[in-house]
Amino acid sequence: MSKKILIIGGVAGGATAATRLRRLSEDDEIVIFEKGEYISFANCGLPYYVGNKITDRDNLLVQTIPGMKDRFNLDVRNFSEVTSIDPKNNQVTVFDSKNNREYQESFDDLIISTGAKVIVPNIPGLKYAKNVFTLRNMANMDDIMSYLDNHSVKTATVIGGGFVGLEMMENLQRRGLKTQLVEQSNQVMPNLDFEMAQQLHQEIEKNGVELYLNNGLKEVTADGQKLVLHNGTELSSDITILSIGVTPASKLAQDSGISLGIKNSIKVNQRFQTNFSNIYAIGDVIQTKNFIDNSDTNVPLASPANRQGRLVADVINDLDVDYGPVQATSIAKVFGPAAASTGMNERTLKEKNIPYRAIHIHTAAHATYYPDAQPLNLKLLFSDQGKILGAQAVGNQGADKRIDVISTAMKLNATAPQLAELELTYAPPFGVAKDPINVLGYVAQNVLDGEVKTADWSKVDQLVADKAFIVDVRDDDEYAAGHVENSHLIPLNQIRDRLSEFPKDQPIYTYCKVGLRGYTASRILKNNGYDVTNIDGGFTTYYIAKYEPRHNA
Amino acid sequence: MSKKILIIGGVAGGATAATRLRRLSEDDEIVIFEKGEYISFANCGLPYYVGNKITDRDNLLVQTIPGMKDRFNLDVRNFSEVTSIDPKNNQVTVFDSKNNREYQESFDDLIISTGAKVIVPNIPGLKYAKNVFTLRNMANMDDIMSYLDNHSVKTATVIGGGFVGLEMMENLQRRGLKTQLVEQSNQVMPNLDFEMAQQLHQEIEKNGVELYLNNGLKEVTADGQKLVLHNGTELSSDITILSIGVTPASKLAQDSGISLGIKNSIKVNQRFQTNFSNIYAIGDVIQTKNFIDNSDTNVPLASPANRQGRLVADVINDLDVDYGPVQATSIAKVFGPAAASTGMNERTLKEKNIPYRAIHIHTAAHATYYPDAQPLNLKLLFSDQGKILGAQAVGNQGADKRIDVISTAMKLNATAPQLAELELTYAPPFGVAKDPINVLGYVAQNVLDGEVKTADWSKVDQLVADKAFIVDVRDDDEYAAGHVENSHLIPLNQIRDRLSEFPKDQPIYTYCKVGLRGYTASRILKNNGYDVTNIDGGFTTYYIAKYEPRHNA
Ligand SMILES: Cc1cc2nc3c(=O)[nH]c(=O)nc-3n(C[C@H](O)[C@H](O)[C@H](O)COP(=O)(O)OP(=O)(O)OC[C@H]3O[C@@H](n4cnc5c(N)ncnc54)[C@H](O)[C@@H]3O)c2cc1C
Ligand SMILES: Cc1cc2nc3c(=O)[nH]c(=O)nc-3n(C[C@H](O)[C@H](O)[C@H](O)COP(=O)(O)OP(=O)(O)OC[C@H]3O[C@@H](n4cnc5c(N)ncnc54)[C@H](O)[C@@H]3O)c2cc1C
Ligand SMILES: CC(C)(COP(=O)(O)OP(=O)(O)OC[C@H]1O[C@@H](n2cnc3c(N)ncnc32)[C@H](O)[C@@H]1OP(=O)(O)O)[C@@H](O)C(=O)NCCC(=O)NCCS
Ligand SMILES: CC(C)(COP(=O)(O)OP(=O)(O)OC[C@H]1O[C@@H](n2cnc3c(N)ncnc32)[C@H](O)[C@@H]1OP(=O)(O)O)[C@@H](O)C(=O)NCCC(=O)NCCS
Repeated sequence: MSKKILIIGGVAGGATAATRLRRLSEDDEIVIFEKGEYISFANCGLPYYVGNKITDRDNLLVQTIPGMKDRFNLDVRNFSEVTSIDPKNNQVTVFDSKNNREYQESFDDLIISTGAKVIVPNIPGLKYAKNVFTLRNMANMDDIMSYLDNHSVKTATVIGGGFVGLEMMENLQRRGLKTQLVEQSNQVMPNLDFEMAQQLHQEIEKNGVELYLNNGLKEVTADGQKLVLHNGTELSSDITILSIGVTPASKLAQDSGISLGIKNSIKVNQRFQTNFSNIYAIGDVIQTKNFIDNSDTNVPLASPANRQGRLVADVINDLDVDYGPVQATSIAKVFGPAAASTGMNERTLKEKNIPYRAIHIHTAAHATYYPDAQPLNLKLLFSDQGKILGAQAVGNQGADKRIDVISTAMKLNATAPQLAELELTYAPPFGVAKDPINVLGYVAQNVLDGEVKTADWSKVDQLVADKAFIVDVRDDDEYAAGHVENSHLIPLNQIRDRLSEFPKDQPIYTYCKVGLRGYTASRILKNNGYDVTNIDGGFTTYYIAKYEPRHNA
Repeated sequence: MSKKILIIGGVAGGATAATRLRRLSEDDEIVIFEKGEYISFANCGLPYYVGNKITDRDNLLVQTIPGMKDRFNLDVRNFSEVTSIDPKNNQVTVFDSKNNREYQESFDDLIISTGAKVIVPNIPGLKYAKNVFTLRNMANMDDIMSYLDNHSVKTATVIGGGFVGLEMMENLQRRGLKTQLVEQSNQVMPNLDFEMAQQLHQEIEKNGVELYLNNGLKEVTADGQKLVLHNGTELSSDITILSIGVTPASKLAQDSGISLGIKNSIKVNQRFQTNFSNIYAIGDVIQTKNFIDNSDTNVPLASPANRQGRLVADVINDLDVDYGPVQATSIAKVFGPAAASTGMNERTLKEKNIPYRAIHIHTAAHATYYPDAQPLNLKLLFSDQGKILGAQAVGNQGADKRIDVISTAMKLNATAPQLAELELTYAPPFGVAKDPINVLGYVAQNVLDGEVKTADWSKVDQLVADKAFIVDVRDDDEYAAGHVENSHLIPLNQIRDRLSEFPKDQPIYTYCKVGLRGYTASRILKNNGYDVTNIDGGFTTYYIAKYEPRHNA
């Protein structure tokens, strides 16, 4: 029996659902309503068009309305906003803004993929500004481009250091604008932990962007040409992009009696059904489960939206579907480096009182003897039982690869020490015979087996204050170039000959550049009967964590 | 109780075992015997030094003898060949070639990590040649470099198209030499299947190397300046690198009563014990289990050697170790592209009568709307139950990442359709919202669920001969540029309007450029009641497979 299926929203989730629905059935009537002009556009590409990195606007239009008709026999209606849903009578009301008319359409099944909308805070003066934009769709992008083309724009400000904000920052800077980034919290990229984000702060300043941390936007003056920050700092800004986050576009659903969950996202079961069994929701607008603790979450990312789009079509065609929890694997390019993560970060684990261990390694993306090996910094979080809880990577090469592998291992319930067993591709241009992933596994195993005790970078200042016995096991010149306050210099290779210099009645803390020599030192000392702790990630993690951005309110 | 542990071989396996042994115990006496001058060198970097890609020779020496003494208190003896093992009396005989003396050394535990040696075939004339080399260690590399520096070398020949042969080919060509590659079988890179290797054949010829396939070396004449191939072709060659494979360096072990297994590798259990419980073997010299069918195998690769080195140290220190089967994940750079694989290839599955399904996708390494997206070709092999049996990738970007992810999924017993569930990093510069890995999962699922029937490229010629009804669903211009013989052109978007042109009483075969449109076409036809099969991988797989190298004997 053929069905009539309506879809609200014609981009990542909605369009994917539609094509799969058609592939599964030639007979169903499938209608997509999209309130904007375009469907199937590459949201994720928008910032790069602003930065002239993507130069052909048409490339952003992955599918078109005629294409969807010809290839998939889909009835796609743009400029068509669904203004209400009537779950009792199984119909929606549609406002056709092109022809300025309203009509009803009935359905057997309804899919809501309305996405998210950019949060616009209620800030004094904002409404008088003509130069403040958000970026969510083609129309927003066109507005930004036209403003840039038609005004003398020299200074640009991005409010918010999430991944879209960072991408806009990079792309505005690419255009040659003097660019400022304003972030209310103490770090950009909230999926990363502070010490990992510090690498990005450094990179951002290195690239000439003025970074304002711990400093939100308080007021907009001079019709938008001046921005006043919380601490009173005044910035001039010819164009401002508001990018402080998104919220599920769920008002339509809520008004129609559809139950909402966390952060106003639509509650769905593992088959994407809302509280009305023939009304489904997918994408940025829904509540999903967190992979780590099965708590409710909302993950506005393209891969899950695409996956859910396919799966909801399967559900409607009575196929087996049981959507699992989400890891929220993500990545963003921030000038040179990529910053990627999967699972929970340390901040969240702490907030949720989930016990964890954290390790940092600083390594190279491929064999260092092969030219152009770029530094790669990794953080792994895992439980006392070895369960992988999360991972973060920052680096100019291979960050995506390492997080993809860890995300895969995590999904398949590998333990952290099992990362050592993974057989990864190795040739000098691509990897390391002991791949960074394997090394994470080794370090995790050593921590869990008690072969090494580690102290976190965040404990170092307290150790110094407590006059702990801290040993720098690097070489003289490294020590001379900078070291932990009051640390004793005893290079690794001299330890066996200078054992008498270590106290037997006091804990010893070792560190080196990245953690490896400190670990080796700690093994020597431990095997000689000392109580020793290695500072995880060495001087590098500590040093990066202590980075001081110029404008830190 | 402290032990005396001897290690034979001081590179990947041996050196790694030694450092871990020391980290686990300060007391053990640990001696490494290395018959060559150097330990801990980067075997895998040697070809790139020949090609001046790595310019500092010292970079190849990852550790040195003094370094191993100072840091790990290891007694490393170079120029020291172990010439016999006496398992009864737990001692070895060592020939110190520097001082020209022989002595005995006793052990509690012995680790054999003697590696592999290059196979030198018995070919007429070879022994008179002064310009024929193999490459396994620093000394071999120095010999090659000195020959290149001291002779007028214009033409170079590599015999053997395995990964070392291909790397040498690239690096000799890089030096500006007219380079020839001679391969006895019908393809290079035996870990790949033929149609995947064909992409490399194309790349090799595109880079100006003369590739001789199906044509082995028969005779060497003119003191090595002339090479005669099986079919009589004569090549001039100023320098020739023999690279037809390696064989376990197990003669010492065998002569000492240690049991050998497949291909003369040393038989060990899952704790690396030989038939003598205190004599262990690791690395290229040992027999391991194949991940797919648990059959005996020998995998001479650096990652497993490094891993085994660490594990054997754990075994000797009574830690829990149970070494599992090996996937043989590998990669090589061949000019632009990387060619990577994991698990079994189709040829081996056929030979072993293991039932399998094969799919090919041709995709891009990242979002195509973002600049510089490079083509990426993937092949996945899996069982009727979905078990992943193997994967291959060829591409200029992201081949390593995709094989690493699949290797991880395979190791952790994910099924092929589960690849669709993996949450991978996505932003335009790094991936695709439906990552190629996810797409492999989708295609595999469609095949296993019977949503699509597929035909392999290798069946196409027979289909043509049998006058099957083959439909090209691409556009006119694509068809005009080349198509399967006698195929009918019906572009995908016209199928619904031209259904009457399809026969109801005969199987229909669809194809497009890469398989996607052909699949969509097959869904339309299937849902309209036709018997339809899609040609897997489309015209691209077929076309590449039919590539004709210039010198194909
Ligand atoms: C600038 C930018 C960059 C991004 N970069 C990345 C990235 O690199 N990686 C990543 O994973 N994700 C990225 N994302 C997020 C990603 O685009 C979203 O997760 C994804 O598009 C969500 O899909 P969706 O179907 O839920 O919503 P959308 O793709 O946003 O589609 C929702 C559509 O519904 C329409 N709609 C809403 N309400 C109605 C209504 N009542 N009637 C009719 N139509 C309606 C909207 O107009 C909209 O077009 C980015 C997003 C943006 C904006
Ligand atoms: C040119 C080249 C490129 C390579 N590229 C890659 C790559 O890209 N990726 C990859 O995974 N693998 C690569 N490999 C393979 C990798 O190097 C090996 O798998 C790895 O080195 C094996 O470690 P092993 O300890 O078993 O043997 P080896 O590292 O070879 O060490 C064995 C040592 O034992 C010594 N020895 C042997 N017999 C005796 C004896 N009787 N007494 C004393 N000493 C003895 C030898 O002199 C040798 O130094 C490459 C190898 C070569 C030669
Ligand atoms: C363009 C769009 C409509 C395409 O959706 P789609 O048809 O599901 O996606 P694809 O074109 O990748 O095709 C995937 C289908 O082809 C199949 N396929 C892909 N490659 C194949 C191959 N080589 N051989 C056979 N089948 C193949 C897949 O199995 C899948 O079919 P299935 O779902 O029935 O299993 C949708 O992705 C879209 O609107 N994208 C833009 C919006 C967006 O995603 N934004 C966020 C990111 S910027
Ligand atoms: C150089 C060589 C002796 C080093 O061996 P190694 O000490 O095992 O290797 P690494 O220097 O990578 O150190 C690894 C150790 O440091 C630890 N480690 C690495 N990074 C760390 C960090 N950031 N913090 C704490 N510990 C760390 C690992 O856990 C591991 O210790 P473990 O085995 O006790 O768990 C050996 O790899 C070698 O000879 N290599 C050259 C030959 C070769 O491999 N050739 C083939 C490839 S070209």
